[in-house]
Amino acid sequence: MKVVLAGDLDPPEWEAWRTALAAALPEGVWLSADEGRREDPPVTAAVVANPPPGSLAGLPGLRLIQSLWAGVDRLLGDPTLPAGVPIARMVDPAMSAAMAETALWATLALHRGFFAYQLRQREGVWRVHTQRRADEVPVLVLGRGAMGNQVAATLRRQGYPVAPWGRDGGPLPPLLAAAEVVINLLPLTPATRGLLDARFFAAMRARSALVNLGRGAHVVDDDLLAALDAGHVRHAVLDVFHAEPLPASHRFWQHRRVTMLPHAAALTDPRSAAAVVASNLRALRDGRPIAHLVDRVRGY
Amino acid sequence: MKVVLAGDLDPPEWEAWRTALAAALPEGVWLSADEGRREDPPVTAAVVANPPPGSLAGLPGLRLIQSLWAGVDRLLGDPTLPAGVPIARMVDPAMSAAMAETALWATLALHRGFFAYQLRQREGVWRVHTQRRADEVPVLVLGRGAMGNQVAATLRRQGYPVAPWGRDGGPLPPLLAAAEVVINLLPLTPATRGLLDARFFAAMRARSALVNLGRGAHVVDDDLLAALDAGHVRHAVLDVFHAEPLPASHRFWQHRRVTMLPHAAALTDPRSAAAVVASNLRALRDGRPIAHLVDRVRGY
Repeated sequence: MKVVLAGDLDPPEWEAWRTALAAALPEGVWLSADEGRREDPPVTAAVVANPPPGSLAGLPGLRLIQSLWAGVDRLLGDPTLPAGVPIARMVDPAMSAAMAETALWATLALHRGFFAYQLRQREGVWRVHTQRRADEVPVLVLGRGAMGNQVAATLRRQGYPVAPWGRDGGPLPPLLAAAEVVINLLPLTPATRGLLDARFFAAMRARSALVNLGRGAHVVDDDLLAALDAGHVRHAVLDVFHAEPLPASHRFWQHRRVTMLPHAAALTDPRSAAAVVASNLRALRDGRPIAHLVDRVRGY
Repeated sequence: MKVVLAGDLDPPEWEAWRTALAAALPEGVWLSADEGRREDPPVTAAVVANPPPGSLAGLPGLRLIQSLWAGVDRLLGDPTLPAGVPIARMVDPAMSAAMAETALWATLALHRGFFAYQLRQREGVWRVHTQRRADEVPVLVLGRGAMGNQVAATLRRQGYPVAPWGRDGGPLPPLLAAAEVVINLLPLTPATRGLLDARFFAAMRARSALVNLGRGAHVVDDDLLAALDAGHVRHAVLDVFHAEPLPASHRFWQHRRVTMLPHAAALTDPRSAAAVVASNLRALRDGRPIAHLVDRVRGY
């Protein structure tokens, strides 16, 4: 089975993926996009990680585009993406587990004031604040996909009252008013771009916190900075940004109320994700249903 | 039932305790130590929180000393403590839960490199490091009491392989060599004072991490600083110190590899702990067994 590999990974990263994919699908022949365009009979599938626009043109036999990443907003933004070819997202159990770990770490730190203690350490201040139980800290999880669901289940298991919200979840403001921690795990679509704006932050409870594990473009940065400066949003844990790496001049870098991660909340793990890819490629070959297909209109 | 309250709490903290204790034991009469010494018939119990040495002298009817704190090392260090009066430690479910939260937060941060990311944010560096699964990060928990057991159970539930070690747990070095995160929850006794010394740190795996939630006097600070400076111990999360508040001149405050908490890993929660006190005071009155009695020779 001939498969094109295309994307913006570094050579060592591709090497890890080739090793894992070869182990998971020994019958696979892994080609670059340029090699793939010269194949006859043509390649039938592409495995992609943010491929440069145009990479997938000139592949007439293409019957599946399998993303290595969970988010496909950049992929769908490529106007040269072959029309009519099914696209599958990555739903990697190790990645969902990693996302739940990051959400749990951020929630524990916000609930127990550990970010504040770290600031006080830098300032040389010893001061104990009050302690509440997890069941006194309501959490709102935006996103009801594989990752949102695993985050919600993990937080509930740790004692937090969790309200989930998804595409058809009704009005957000009452849920925002009730939560102390808001965790964003929505897909980036035309409907969710810029959702976290001044109105959204105003609807959040005073002194509540934001954890953005979705996409940078969900957030209107100036509106978030205003809410942080006013103290209305007490703290923000941000993993994703409009531009990545975040430009050095951006105020998030040095903001006291911002904890940044370099888009590392959850990495796809080649060891488990290769099995997901192999399963879908075999389903394609055997005419069985493909898992995690993307709805191009809905955007995820 | 006449009960002396003695300890070094601030007036608002005593107020919270008096309110919670009055609700949990309406028949209680709560007195200061000075008031208690003038009572006839004499008071039968004392509820204490690090009482100043000598506070419990001159109370001839005393039949139980109930600590509000889990650790009784300071209490037992008082040479004027009435001999022969049973002492009970606090085992508060909310406190054990809080301790498990802190241990989980620290373990997640050490496993996923979140402390390193926070340092890089301060330095303006965007760099992603590799990600491992929880099942690849072995954790050693020192202490098999209520808190150690709850910490171990919480970490196991989150996927970490946990080795527990207690007083009769055999030689430590092989366990230290196998762990990436070592969490100390031992009681402070003559047998454990200074246990975390140069030999202990040398036995730890290279680039592993320490979380000290026990007592400051478990650690030989200079030995820990040497292990941190050498990078042999990658990071230390420290909640407890030889002197508290930690003196401003101590190197822990500004050490890049140290994350400090102001003895706040787990506070006793008056709302749940008052019920524990009331239960023991009623047991005393009714001649039933007292829970969580301290062995003065063993030291906890």
